[in-house]
Amino acid sequence: MAAASDPVNDALALLLKGTVTCHKAEQLETKLKEGRPLRIKAGFDPTAPDLHLGHGVLIRKMAQFQKLGHEVTFLIGDFTGLIGDPTGKKATRPPLTREEVLANAETYKAQVFKILDPERTKVRFNSEWLGELKGEDWIRLTSRFTVAQMLERNDFAKRMDAREPIALHELLYPLTQAYDSVALRADVELGGNDQLFNLMQGRILQEASGQKPQVVLTVPLLLGLDGVEKMSKSLGNYIGFMEDPDTQFGKAMSVSDTLMWDWYLLLTDKLPAEIEALKQGHPMDAKKALARQIVSDFHGATAGREAEERWIRRFSERSLEEAPDIALPPTDGEVPLARLLVDRGLAGSRKEAERLIAQGAVSLDGEKAGDPSVRLVLRPGQSLLVKVGKLKLERWTVS
Amino acid sequence: MAAASDPVNDALALLLKGTVTCHKAEQLETKLKEGRPLRIKAGFDPTAPDLHLGHGVLIRKMAQFQKLGHEVTFLIGDFTGLIGDPTGKKATRPPLTREEVLANAETYKAQVFKILDPERTKVRFNSEWLGELKGEDWIRLTSRFTVAQMLERNDFAKRMDAREPIALHELLYPLTQAYDSVALRADVELGGNDQLFNLMQGRILQEASGQKPQVVLTVPLLLGLDGVEKMSKSLGNYIGFMEDPDTQFGKAMSVSDTLMWDWYLLLTDKLPAEIEALKQGHPMDAKKALARQIVSDFHGATAGREAEERWIRRFSERSLEEAPDIALPPTDGEVPLARLLVDRGLAGSRKEAERLIAQGAVSLDGEKAGDPSVRLVLRPGQSLLVKVGKLKLERWTVS
Repeated sequence: MAAASDPVNDALALLLKGTVTCHKAEQLETKLKEGRPLRIKAGFDPTAPDLHLGHGVLIRKMAQFQKLGHEVTFLIGDFTGLIGDPTGKKATRPPLTREEVLANAETYKAQVFKILDPERTKVRFNSEWLGELKGEDWIRLTSRFTVAQMLERNDFAKRMDAREPIALHELLYPLTQAYDSVALRADVELGGNDQLFNLMQGRILQEASGQKPQVVLTVPLLLGLDGVEKMSKSLGNYIGFMEDPDTQFGKAMSVSDTLMWDWYLLLTDKLPAEIEALKQGHPMDAKKALARQIVSDFHGATAGREAEERWIRRFSERSLEEAPDIALPPTDGEVPLARLLVDRGLAGSRKEAERLIAQGAVSLDGEKAGDPSVRLVLRPGQSLLVKVGKLKLERWTVS
Repeated sequence: MAAASDPVNDALALLLKGTVTCHKAEQLETKLKEGRPLRIKAGFDPTAPDLHLGHGVLIRKMAQFQKLGHEVTFLIGDFTGLIGDPTGKKATRPPLTREEVLANAETYKAQVFKILDPERTKVRFNSEWLGELKGEDWIRLTSRFTVAQMLERNDFAKRMDAREPIALHELLYPLTQAYDSVALRADVELGGNDQLFNLMQGRILQEASGQKPQVVLTVPLLLGLDGVEKMSKSLGNYIGFMEDPDTQFGKAMSVSDTLMWDWYLLLTDKLPAEIEALKQGHPMDAKKALARQIVSDFHGATAGREAEERWIRRFSERSLEEAPDIALPPTDGEVPLARLLVDRGLAGSRKEAERLIAQGAVSLDGEKAGDPSVRLVLRPGQSLLVKVGKLKLERWTVS
């Protein structure tokens, strides 16, 4: 029995999928039911960005809201960037100039508008309102929070325990982020799950300011190509927004099946039930579809299809040279090819092997073996290039 | 052998006397040796002041610097007063208006200029500079301190231990005070010893700002008339700046001898050696001199002398009525008056008693007994008013 389609339920299913935290889902549902465009906020660092799929998880979530008609603000946290590292300790973080901030914003736009709709995205800078706060505003802002509340943040607590210094201004940063939510009157704030504490402060400050608290939605860190470490530029296990289609496709094809399903959840709009259905098919097909979609996200659908074709062609060419050499004993007379394919693991069953042969998907030394009942004799010294489908290739050497 | 008088040493002796902390005396000496007028800072609460001798300790210390030619800033901390209690929890501390702050400043002036020289006192308001600080200035300011440093403050540490909330803005207040020192380029900051932590932050921030750190001088809390509790309006154990001469004189005369010496140290310019010398004289004389000086501080020398005269007169009149009734047995014939005075404790020795009689300091029923060897017969039913000096009076009733 199919449930009657309900737009709010459908929206919730899409928006909540792949998230780590939604605080609170029932409030999100209430807001969605109001039928108005919700104000969606996500904050980004003002330093020069070079985005990869790790950022893509969050940006795709923003895009999902956008597709549902909501108003997305891409917020550049330039206020603190304009200050730099006020302790002067980190030589790597000098203050940014206004021009650098604007240049970085353009770099951001060039990347994120591959996924976000420029027409429905507001790009804002938090120095607009944080720069205007006066002394008494800061006192009032800080009076809303206790020291203990701030020190609950995971990394602060650890540093306190370890007696590592926490500069007082570090306690102010979560508040500036919270104040951004008040300034934008955000309905929803999105962020990485490591930002959960800061995002929750936005709820507190909005309530103290007489606003309805924002819904806080966090997405997980994406694992990189290795399937072990989180995706990061410095580890090299990434797919960049600006990489060319062939590089993106090839990198996507290199991930493990396990990681692939994770990426399906976080990097596509497919719902869990659809992903489960995909698991019934061939993993290689699912992986190619994922890789195609990733390339399409950044370069368009045509580029996705073409990258796939090129990848298959290159894979095949490479395979001819790289086909693994398999040593087989001579046969005791004629043996069905289908049985040899099953023995070698090139087909899952005798029936599948026969179907593949009948479909012309099996070739011997480049010649299709069209008859599913064909039988072979393997003699010592004989060498045979066996290809099954587009991807499976072996050289049988009889000894 | 008298030490050659050295102006810097003399100044140091006066300035350091009665202080709890001087951080650091050698830096104060260095600054004094520069020969220029030092910038002396002391901060005061902006709420309506009703000053008493407890405040007088600090203000007299300011006056001592002033008399030595230094430049004193009476700093009214109106910045936080203009904000009020930002948590809105304390109904008793609503924000002050600019007009209230200015009116309170006039009230201050009317009081402190009884001790300070108006010509050589700058009255400033810290909202002048703190109100101008922008967001990035606050970030930079807070970046100079760690959370742990702030939580070292005694009352913060206690509240953290007791798990009582500390609002984040409370951590900012010591910094605003520190910033005042930077804004004023203070050479010396004076304060109550309970302010020591805050004053020390000024040193830190001045050094971070490339200034020579201020010398921090703190004075103790003054004990009130009872000699037990610190002087405070609410306890009633105070002498107010604005009280009339007779009230001030009378209250001062009521303190214990022990407390008197403490007040000498904290409420006069007398150096410890001079105070030691006073201890050789009669305590009553020292107490009257102290009371006279206190009145003189607020109402001028003439008012001081007149208050003393009135007090002595009133004391004598009151004494006639209030002379304690002492029951004595009849004498066995004639007895020297001097011996009776010693027996009653009205003189320390026979010799002193005879000297007092010879000086005319002893009277019987209002008649001076001028002969030191005079002898009396006390008969049953007789009553005799005996006065020794100006203050000792008894009615002897023989039964």
